[in-house]
Order: sequence, then structure tokens, then C-alpha cells
Amino acid sequence: MNAEIIAVGSELLLGQIANTNAQFISEHLASLGIDVFFHTVCGDNEGRLIDVIKKAETRADLLIFTGGLGPTKDDLTKETVANVLGRTLVTDQDAMDSILEYFKVTGRKMTENNKKQALVVEGCQVLPNHHGMAPGMIVDANHHLYLLMPGVPSEMKPMFLDFATRFLARRNEEHIQSRVLRFFGIGESQLETEIIDLIDAQSNPTIAPLAKESEVTLRLTAKHDQVEQVEEMLDQIEAKIDARVGQYLYGYNEDSLPEIVFELLRKKKKTIAFAESLTGGMAADWMAEYPGASSVLNGGIVSYSNQVKEHVLLVPEEVLHTDGAVSANCAKYMAASVRKLCNSDIGLAFTGVAGPDKSEGKTVGTVYIGFADENGSESYRFQFNGSRRKIRIQSTKTGYDIVRRHLNNLPLLSH
Amino acid sequence: MNAEIIAVGSELLLGQIANTNAQFISEHLASLGIDVFFHTVCGDNEGRLIDVIKKAETRADLLIFTGGLGPTKDDLTKETVANVLGRTLVTDQDAMDSILEYFKVTGRKMTENNKKQALVVEGCQVLPNHHGMAPGMIVDANHHLYLLMPGVPSEMKPMFLDFATRFLARRNEEHIQSRVLRFFGIGESQLETEIIDLIDAQSNPTIAPLAKESEVTLRLTAKHDQVEQVEEMLDQIEAKIDARVGQYLYGYNEDSLPEIVFELLRKKKKTIAFAESLTGGMAADWMAEYPGASSVLNGGIVSYSNQVKEHVLLVPEEVLHTDGAVSANCAKYMAASVRKLCNSDIGLAFTGVAGPDKSEGKTVGTVYIGFADENGSESYRFQFNGSRRKIRIQSTKTGYDIVRRHLNNLPLLSH
Repeated sequence: MNAEIIAVGSELLLGQIANTNAQFISEHLASLGIDVFFHTVCGDNEGRLIDVIKKAETRADLLIFTGGLGPTKDDLTKETVANVLGRTLVTDQDAMDSILEYFKVTGRKMTENNKKQALVVEGCQVLPNHHGMAPGMIVDANHHLYLLMPGVPSEMKPMFLDFATRFLARRNEEHIQSRVLRFFGIGESQLETEIIDLIDAQSNPTIAPLAKESEVTLRLTAKHDQVEQVEEMLDQIEAKIDARVGQYLYGYNEDSLPEIVFELLRKKKKTIAFAESLTGGMAADWMAEYPGASSVLNGGIVSYSNQVKEHVLLVPEEVLHTDGAVSANCAKYMAASVRKLCNSDIGLAFTGVAGPDKSEGKTVGTVYIGFADENGSESYRFQFNGSRRKIRIQSTKTGYDIVRRHLNNLPLLSH
Repeated sequence: MNAEIIAVGSELLLGQIANTNAQFISEHLASLGIDVFFHTVCGDNEGRLIDVIKKAETRADLLIFTGGLGPTKDDLTKETVANVLGRTLVTDQDAMDSILEYFKVTGRKMTENNKKQALVVEGCQVLPNHHGMAPGMIVDANHHLYLLMPGVPSEMKPMFLDFATRFLARRNEEHIQSRVLRFFGIGESQLETEIIDLIDAQSNPTIAPLAKESEVTLRLTAKHDQVEQVEEMLDQIEAKIDARVGQYLYGYNEDSLPEIVFELLRKKKKTIAFAESLTGGMAADWMAEYPGASSVLNGGIVSYSNQVKEHVLLVPEEVLHTDGAVSANCAKYMAASVRKLCNSDIGLAFTGVAGPDKSEGKTVGTVYIGFADENGSESYRFQFNGSRRKIRIQSTKTGYDIVRRHLNNLPLLSH
């Protein structure tokens, strides 16, 4: 089976947003063993969309549409697909019910055009939308599958993962599987250098490095007609990679450092609190993202001003005066103090210079991270670089990696 | 003039990266007055690329290619374009010199395949690459323009801005300009209903609504051969929209609620502090993003546990016991208390149920936002819906909107 992903929306052609939906869908189709040969983006224009659909039918079995299912006039994907297939649109009662429910719950006034969102292509399978109003659809017609999903990523992604992939997996018979290894604390080129011979010898599985925000991933992809063989092949190549750079490997696939730390804290029944200067709440926010966060996250203090550092976080005045707010000593006090104030097992503290300007005569990217637990408080110095945002993100990730290494009794990386 | 943007690279079809190049180029073409009707992504496959080029020639005057100019075997964009146009590839001496120079400077050993990067399509105009080795090209042939650029964004972007846009601006004589109006507190369908007659009557300027995370935007786009006329046309349509839904309009183009609040605070020399329960540090983090944040952000307290609410944030125990942590009273105390503790002009507090489970018997999406200033402390109740993440983001944005309205002496929206 091979697919073409068709995004409908003039906002993409105007450059207001990037077509990240196509990336997300492609990545998952690859793991289902479905080839993607083309992505197409087309505006909210019926004539051009008809032309795109007809072209795609000549070169793909599966046409995946994102966007154009909303309530407004320029949303015309399902109308156009129905038109090309010679079908009508009919009201889906479940979709209508959940639209009415939405307006009842939120107390907002429902406008007439919202009813348009409950219309689906005659004879389709309806995919429920649990994060918005417009349902998705799968139409099986003329030896092609037409999968229609909303364009808003927060609605499309769960619909695709929860409903569409299951349907597609049943339809496809080749087994391709990917496994993403996630590394922290090593750069892309250094990682590549360490395993260049493995990459060069690649064919099946393939090894593809990719740098993401302060992290590097390796995507291993194996193909076989026996599903057990695929797993085995991935295990073998992973073992070789692990022998070289395993000390930097922290997780797999969709794992993230905060999620791994969240799960570790939960498993070990430990709680954490954050004292944040340059990260400004980012570290606590990342933890609060997970359902059940309250079992591990006690709280935190964003000590942006020195007044808050001194009077709320209780860092001794002489430390702020003598060492400065950006110092090893201050980070140690911050970590110990937030741990005590928030009554948590672990205290993690961030202080540093996010830029763009120097602070206290310290260069941009100078960051101290403090870690406190029942054994006392320590701090670590780092020199990061890049934009303000990059420095703040790298600080937060590094802090999480320090907690992960402490909880797993792993040695800290040297800097 | 109208354009099609063709990205060449199997990594895009595998979902390893998103096609952000197309977004970047589209945005700049819009401001040059060049329409973009299609984006296409094609893999490293000659047959399929030929097919894409031939299709694009039927529907665009300008074909813009990104990717496939590198040294490896699967880089085949210029070979394929030359093939379709019946031209040969020739060595560009400047490009060859800079490739040799690069290896001399870096001390790296040059492999033979790097010379391939100095080959260009016969008769083209060469675009220098100051950030990498492969030069770009513009070919003017058969009433079409073919613009070839590297796929690496850090090489493509400066090449496009420094060389290609100048060339294209000379070729194009129409002026198109867009203005994005940003709304908060109104849904997409309600906004559309309020201005449906204006949208229906649209042709020039056009009015395009778009829903983003808890916000709606309207993109107004006007065309004229006189640049002053374009501004005038946008002003006129904006005035009409403003008369209907101006109370929800908070900004323009790349504005965001936190940025607007940041600028307002700075202008009015006011400081802010946040007390965050369900938002968990998100509100403070958004403010810390801006260079110079320390002039307005004093700090905050992430009061996730009741212990922190009571002992660090000093919310009276009886409030937590009688009203609960998710209550109007608690939000008021949180705002007043964080304002006092962090010695700031404004205190903003968030408490609520982010989900997925109920809390204190209160339904998911119940949120209280407290606002405190020198006049006292108030709180506002909201009922949001959607995922945990969506509820947290909507809470944070709503809090920022409350601050914005207070600072501008605007009436608060009713709920």
C-alpha cells in the first residue's frame, strides 16, 4: 500500500503554519510499512483540490487529507471528496450529538454553521473526534481509501493514532518497524563519528541520526515479512550501538527526559520541587504536563528577582552579595531551600544567564544547576550556547538528566 | 506570477523532518505578491521527480526546488531539472573554488563526490551559498523560472533572502500585503458568523479565518499595483471588522498575549508575579521567554500541593478546608499572597482541574483565575474543555488576557 498526504488550507500556502501534520502521519505510516511517495498542499479552492485528488488517485492507493472539515465556508474537503466520488453528504447523529453537547457544556451559543461539521460522506466509516467537533472519515471506494481528518494537530493526532492506524494496520501486510533511540549529552556529529562504520554498513536495518532540541536521536528501521524477525534485527543493531554510546542513551521512541523522570519518581515514590531563575517555571511546567503530576510534583518557586531569592526562597543575603545570584553556592542553597520549603524529597535549582546580555559580568550561557536530596546539596556548572530559548531549554533538560542519573545511580557526565 | 514549491528528499516522506522550508518561502513570496498554489514533496526518485516537474509546469510560472543538491548519489534535483530541460551540467569555477577553500580551512579530507556540488545547469544564474557548499541556481527557460536551492534551512534561508528574493521582486510588479488580526475569547465559528457578510463579499482584500490554540486569527490580504493603496484597503476592511468584534481583538501579525502583556507591563513600569497550581509554571515561563523579562517578572510560586499553598503561599488553612483548593476564594488568596510575597504590582493566580480526573468533586476544566493589584483581589470562574494540555494553555492565555484588560482599562469578557 502506498499513500499520498494531501493538506488542504490556504494558511499553509501563505506560510502561516508549517505542514507538521504530514510529518507526523508519515512517521507513523513508515512504522506501519506504508510507503509515502508524495505530500501535497493545496489551498481552499475546489477546482484545484479536484485536480489534486485526481492526480493522487493515479499514484496512490491511500489518500490522506488533513484540514478543511471545519464549520466555515472555505472548509471544503469533504464536499470535494464527495463530489469526486459522486456521493452525497449525510448527517452523522453521533457527531451532531457531541457538537450539541459541546455547546451545552461550555455554555456558548451555537451558531448554525456548526451543524455543517456533523455532515459526513455517505457510506463512510466515521472516526470520532474527542478533541474537537469535526469527525474524521474513511471512505473505501474505487480501489482507493480516502482518509479525511481535521487539520488542527491536537485533533488530528489522537484521531489518527486511536482510530486510523488500527484500520490501516489491518489492511497492510509488510512489516516495517522503527525504533528511535534517544540520546542526551552528546552532539550529533560526535555520535555519528562514534558509529560511522555501523551507519555506513547499514541497509536493513537502516540507522538515521537526527538532531532535535538539545538532543540527538537514531532511528533504526528494519523490514521483514516475519514480525518477530523485525524485533530481533532491531535488538541486534541496538546492542552494537549501546556498546559504543550507551552512556548517553536515555530512552526510546516518544520518551522524553521529563516523562522518564516523572515515571522514575512515581516508581520510587519520591517527590520533587523546583527553584527556577533563568528557566522561569519551565521545569515545573514540563512535569505538570503529565496526568497524575501531583503525586510527584510538590511545587516550586520562580525566583526571578533577588528579592524572591532572598525573602521567599531564603537564600542567605551574603551568598547573593558575595557569590552572586549566578553561582555554584546560590544554586546549592536554592536546591536545598526549595526542597525544604516544599517538603519534597528532591530539590532541583536553576540559575544562570539566558541572555541576550551578560549578567553579573558572567557570560551568556553560564548556568549552575543545584541538586538536593537527603544526602545534601550539590551544584554543577555548565556553559551552554545559542539563543535565549535554546539556553533555557538545554538548562531544563540537563536538570532533568541530572535527576535521572541520581535516581538510577548512574555517573554524572563530565563537563 | 504564481509558484509551486517542490521539496525533494525522502527524509520528508519518512517524517524525519517537517517541510518548514515551504513555510518560510511561502511567507516571503506572499509579501512579494507571488501566489503559491501548491507545495509538493517528492522523494529522491528520478522518475517521480520528472512527473512532479511536468505537472508543476502546467500550473505554475515559478518552480522552486529545495533539497537534492548535495554530494551524495541520492541528490538528483539539478540532474533531473537539466534532463527535463534538455541541458547539460557544467562546472561552476567559483563554486569549485569555495569547495576547495572549505576543505583547506577546515583541514578535512575532500572526498571525490564533493566535486559534484560545483556542477550547475548550463546557462543558469548561479546563487552563491555562503553557509555551505552547494550553490543555488535560477534557470529561465520555456516561459518558466526554475529556482533550485539546498534543503538545509540554514543554507537555503540566507540564499533565498539575499539573492532569490531580489531577483523575483524585479520580475513581479503586483503588491500583495497581508495583515493578521488576532482574537481571544471568541470561537472561530462565532467570529465567522459575526462577519459572514464581509467574508462573502470578499475578493480583494480577502478575509481568511484560522483557529489556533485557544485563539482565532483573521488574515486580511489585499492586492494592488500601488503599494500605498494596499495599506489603505487593509485599514478599511479592518475598521469594518473592528466595529463588529473589536472587543476580542488583541493584536496583529506575530503578536502573542504574553508578549503584549510583557510590553504593557514594561511601558507602565509594573511588575508581576504568578501563583500557579494547574498551570504549573507555564505562565511564568512564558514571560521569562522575553529578553529583559527581569524588569517585569519578579517571580512566582508553583503551588501544586496543598502544603505549598498553605505554608509557602500562605493561603489560610480554613480556605483550603472549607472552599477547597479549586475555589474562587483560594484563587483570590493566591493572587494577593503571591503579589505580596514577591513584592510585585500585580499577582495572577491559577487553580483548577486540568484532568483527566475530577478533583475535589469538581469537573475537569473548572478553573479559577485570581487577579490582585493595589485595589485588592478578585477571582473569575471558567469552564474550559479539551485535553489536559489544552485546558492548561487556555487557562494561561485567559490569565494573560485578564491582565491585558486590567492594564488597558478594558471591560472583562463575561463568561
